[in-house]
Amino acid sequence: MKALVLHAARDLRVEDRPDPQPGPGQVLAAIAKGGICGSDLHYFQHGGIGSMIRLREPMILGHEVSGHVAALGAGVDRFSVGDLVAVSPSRPCGACTYCQQGQQQHCLNMRFYGSAMPMPHIQGAFRQLLVADAAQCVPAHGLSPAQAAMAEPLAVCLHAVNQAGALMGKTVLITGCGPIGCLTLLAARNAGAARIIVTDLTDFTLSTARGLGADLAVNVGTHPDALTPLSEGKGKVDVHFECSGAAQALATGVAVLRPGGVLVQLGLGGDATVPLQAMTVKELTLRGSFRFHREFASAVQAMQSGRIDVSPLLSGSYPMEDAAAALDHAADRNRAMKISLDFA
Amino acid sequence: MKALVLHAARDLRVEDRPDPQPGPGQVLAAIAKGGICGSDLHYFQHGGIGSMIRLREPMILGHEVSGHVAALGAGVDRFSVGDLVAVSPSRPCGACTYCQQGQQQHCLNMRFYGSAMPMPHIQGAFRQLLVADAAQCVPAHGLSPAQAAMAEPLAVCLHAVNQAGALMGKTVLITGCGPIGCLTLLAARNAGAARIIVTDLTDFTLSTARGLGADLAVNVGTHPDALTPLSEGKGKVDVHFECSGAAQALATGVAVLRPGGVLVQLGLGGDATVPLQAMTVKELTLRGSFRFHREFASAVQAMQSGRIDVSPLLSGSYPMEDAAAALDHAADRNRAMKISLDFA
Amino acid sequence: MKALVLHAARDLRVEDRPDPQPGPGQVLAAIAKGGICGSDLHYFQHGGIGSMIRLREPMILGHEVSGHVAALGAGVDRFSVGDLVAVSPSRPCGACTYCQQGQQQHCLNMRFYGSAMPMPHIQGAFRQLLVADAAQCVPAHGLSPAQAAMAEPLAVCLHAVNQAGALMGKTVLITGCGPIGCLTLLAARNAGAARIIVTDLTDFTLSTARGLGADLAVNVGTHPDALTPLSEGKGKVDVHFECSGAAQALATGVAVLRPGGVLVQLGLGGDATVPLQAMTVKELTLRGSFRFHREFASAVQAMQSGRIDVSPLLSGSYPMEDAAAALDHAADRNRAMKISLDFA
Amino acid sequence: MKALVLHAARDLRVEDRPDPQPGPGQVLAAIAKGGICGSDLHYFQHGGIGSMIRLREPMILGHEVSGHVAALGAGVDRFSVGDLVAVSPSRPCGACTYCQQGQQQHCLNMRFYGSAMPMPHIQGAFRQLLVADAAQCVPAHGLSPAQAAMAEPLAVCLHAVNQAGALMGKTVLITGCGPIGCLTLLAARNAGAARIIVTDLTDFTLSTARGLGADLAVNVGTHPDALTPLSEGKGKVDVHFECSGAAQALATGVAVLRPGGVLVQLGLGGDATVPLQAMTVKELTLRGSFRFHREFASAVQAMQSGRIDVSPLLSGSYPMEDAAAALDHAADRNRAMKISLDFA
Repeated sequence: MKALVLHAARDLRVEDRPDPQPGPGQVLAAIAKGGICGSDLHYFQHGGIGSMIRLREPMILGHEVSGHVAALGAGVDRFSVGDLVAVSPSRPCGACTYCQQGQQQHCLNMRFYGSAMPMPHIQGAFRQLLVADAAQCVPAHGLSPAQAAMAEPLAVCLHAVNQAGALMGKTVLITGCGPIGCLTLLAARNAGAARIIVTDLTDFTLSTARGLGADLAVNVGTHPDALTPLSEGKGKVDVHFECSGAAQALATGVAVLRPGGVLVQLGLGGDATVPLQAMTVKELTLRGSFRFHREFASAVQAMQSGRIDVSPLLSGSYPMEDAAAALDHAADRNRAMKISLDFA
Repeated sequence: MKALVLHAARDLRVEDRPDPQPGPGQVLAAIAKGGICGSDLHYFQHGGIGSMIRLREPMILGHEVSGHVAALGAGVDRFSVGDLVAVSPSRPCGACTYCQQGQQQHCLNMRFYGSAMPMPHIQGAFRQLLVADAAQCVPAHGLSPAQAAMAEPLAVCLHAVNQAGALMGKTVLITGCGPIGCLTLLAARNAGAARIIVTDLTDFTLSTARGLGADLAVNVGTHPDALTPLSEGKGKVDVHFECSGAAQALATGVAVLRPGGVLVQLGLGGDATVPLQAMTVKELTLRGSFRFHREFASAVQAMQSGRIDVSPLLSGSYPMEDAAAALDHAADRNRAMKISLDFA
Repeated sequence: MKALVLHAARDLRVEDRPDPQPGPGQVLAAIAKGGICGSDLHYFQHGGIGSMIRLREPMILGHEVSGHVAALGAGVDRFSVGDLVAVSPSRPCGACTYCQQGQQQHCLNMRFYGSAMPMPHIQGAFRQLLVADAAQCVPAHGLSPAQAAMAEPLAVCLHAVNQAGALMGKTVLITGCGPIGCLTLLAARNAGAARIIVTDLTDFTLSTARGLGADLAVNVGTHPDALTPLSEGKGKVDVHFECSGAAQALATGVAVLRPGGVLVQLGLGGDATVPLQAMTVKELTLRGSFRFHREFASAVQAMQSGRIDVSPLLSGSYPMEDAAAALDHAADRNRAMKISLDFA
Repeated sequence: MKALVLHAARDLRVEDRPDPQPGPGQVLAAIAKGGICGSDLHYFQHGGIGSMIRLREPMILGHEVSGHVAALGAGVDRFSVGDLVAVSPSRPCGACTYCQQGQQQHCLNMRFYGSAMPMPHIQGAFRQLLVADAAQCVPAHGLSPAQAAMAEPLAVCLHAVNQAGALMGKTVLITGCGPIGCLTLLAARNAGAARIIVTDLTDFTLSTARGLGADLAVNVGTHPDALTPLSEGKGKVDVHFECSGAAQALATGVAVLRPGGVLVQLGLGGDATVPLQAMTVKELTLRGSFRFHREFASAVQAMQSGRIDVSPLLSGSYPMEDAAAALDHAADRNRAMKISLDFA
């Protein structure tokens, strides 16, 4: 089989690897589609993410994938060969303190596809054949492979919505309208948010968000004061999903959140100066959101039922041989939401 | 003006009453539509609700109304004459312990339209002219008067959903598919419920629920074992909204709720024998839901935005002079969801 | 070794059993003390608990035990031979849906000592030698063996307090002042309850509760109206722990709980008629509490730190040969709180 | 009567003011004791707090006071002349959005004693006679006037504990051991915290905290690595109360909090750089805590019952004429916890 292996920044190669075989309790999936995530872009462009996570050995990229069941290991009977499945990149150990508390996203022994954090690196899923535990696979009949590959980022956003508490009837701000911001918009609406305001610096992403149902989409680069009315009376926004990783976006949320409001931080942007005094006086709750666990299956089901439609986010697809061009397209926030790769 | 006054069981009269005038901070509304509620039916059919609440003096019925602004009291500038408004029947005092804790539905001095609980009774809103506090009125432009009159029962159901905690991705059971059950179905879906199962004893209501999007609608009279698979593995249901007031329906929920599940009780059916041991061993949460407060404005907004469409529940309308016929129609669960009266 | 084996109601025998050996990850404990629980009493007096749980084969009784480490299986290094340990009777599988959600008390494959629910029965811990998983054992240095054997019922009560939410500054009602009611009193006080009112039908238990710090202890048999003032203004009590299993006690709680109050049900008393309408109108939360998981270690630590002192509950101790006399003493609510057996 | 009026930084004068009279619903209190708070110190030393809150006109200082009832306005019958009362400095309007949601600490029209934030300033309570609403006064029999004056800072800390959720059995870190840190220690213990670790930079405050029951008291100036073991396994601390306002202390909490842990920020220190990425990845909850409302009465009751003993924090008392000396003493963290002034 072939796999997409990153050797260094911008040194991405299609390489042959031996075909894997499923063991007991496992599934062999012929990968169909793989979505390109911001972390894939960081590895490709910079050879790492920030200063802490650096590529130290060749690593197969990718963690947002779908495929068709090609073979079943012993004891697996939930699937048939040929079934389309979304494959979760999350493999918690199940036994550590956090797994036993239902906090699998904090597993002390997590092996998440395509991560250079541990050494040896956890190899990724941009490959033609992938062996996964049956528990990682969710049947995705009724979805296209590209939709099924969206289960992972959608799960991230469903988890963020779960971190916020009930949203019914609430006013929501989302800063950053890339794929995560837009999927959070869909997830928040699905959870009952009444009014959703989004911000970004590019008109393309804002236009996408508007098409997905945002009640107000503001380019805060060209209209820096547009949210000021939301800060009246100590604040009008109930929940802020911060998807940009920009300190300025967090500060905007602090200004417009009502006292007692909730700010869910998804974006990863390193250390930041925050208006801590205002956060304290308004008794805001800032809560991080990191990955997902149970939400992966929920994401597939939400797409299957039609309650969440990710199709408008699918900006294009490239054969795996053109991965570099795909990554460059994915990096252009003026014309790309989610770019995927074909492995079939 | 004319009003619908109940003198005794089945003794409902159209009577003349003096035209009221709005005081400072008040609104005079020309009532357009009034929805008939189960409590109105109880008063009409039985002269009271259970043995505790009995009609002891003539009382104007009704509490689900909409109207057009006819005049404004001093200091009211949020409305214009002619505006359609939904009028909340809930008038908490604002000053008691519960009001100051944000629990206005438990106000120690509540004056809720059309209630024979206190003496003198609180006169209702089935009348041509009604003076209400501005805070009770929510602008309802874009809605029909019949839709606007649905704000009250919808608010009851939004409140019930709020009592349940976040519903996103959850499996929900609703027992009882009258107007409250069906509106709870719409509210739960709007809040992100993934799978919604409803039960009732009449096919008409089940058919309505199916049309509103129920994933499974079961006549538990003719198919008493249809929910048994939901009790496997200690239970498959996350949240149960009990809208029937029947002890058997509550017991069904206890059987199918997963350990740690939530049962929100809306239906009022008097004392009941419940499977307390199973509830304890499964660590279920049974929580009552009573009326609403902030949810009244949310209900109007949810209808205005199109997120909740109550139109399929509007079964018919009668002139106020035909109130007795309207009440009889409303009492027939084989052909009525919500019946309304015309006061204009 | 010797074990206490129940063959039928009141047919309890001291029998020889082969000495067990610890496997990898296990501990061999020489049992020192075993506390007699209400369920042990039910088995002894009635040959079962209610109509559903019946003794169908000989079963070693008991699940509240402490002992000294006698030998260590391979890979266990947290203990030394001779250490006093409290041994949890709870052995969840760790792998099922509920274990993976941190709800081990609902494990689908639970093996809880001394339970006749499954067939074959789960043999109990009233024996001289017990092999337990290391994870079941909590070091209890500084405690007496009789105190250490209280970890289990105390864990039940800490879990109940956790089910209630924060108690700081709250007014608490506890109905039933047996060992569970009294330990709940200690646990609630430790969690910050401001005022604690207890009820029972026997003066001995009420006197014990008073000695443990109850602010008000009421014999509701002789003073049935003593709690009436607590029902004023819709209710004055924030949280009710119902430890008696009596429907009348639950009804008392419903009357005195404030709107929005919480009723934690610990007592197991079968189906019961409850004032469901009042519970709904007051929007009470009734939540079951069943066993414990993480609270077992917390119970040992709370005793070790001195924050909870269970000594006043230790009513007496009997050699295992006198188990029948011990059980009769334990059954006498006029002179017994916790009776324990000596196995050393 | 005489009052302590600040005219500019370090220009504090005892001035005559006319004796006030209580109106309907009000109480005239002869102030006995007034505790010096950090904000009083800031006004005295710097003429304001930060750059935003500046003294712009003469202002009576002070907001932590107790006194004896000297006269009652019409309609007040809860008190008798001579009663010792703790007087809350918090006067929410009761009518705004936040008051009607039970969030009185965020009242849009708050008048909190001794605040230069609005213009005209809200005059403070360091005076011989004070007219307060009856709702501000809590009977404090059994306490000394100096203890009663501690109700305000203790209420701040009880509120912070309420912001943290249930503490029973938890490991708690408190950074900053001034009066607020020490009272938080007492409040957290009262709420069931199992292990409490405190940090500061001065040995005097740490010694006080040790005397109040801290399990570990660390001078992080001289032992900067002492908390490192708490960061193992992703973190060992459940809840962090940050009482210092120092960014470094917040960063310490982020390092030692377990995933999903809670950081309650009480200290006000202006904008700060925080480890936002680590907070996100660990899904920490950072929640502000600001003032109090219902906790004021709880604070008095906790002291009256003996559950919280603030006596070890009372470092000394000065006549009002020696206020400057008192403020200088209060400013010395090597020998002062709470300094109070005598007004009687």
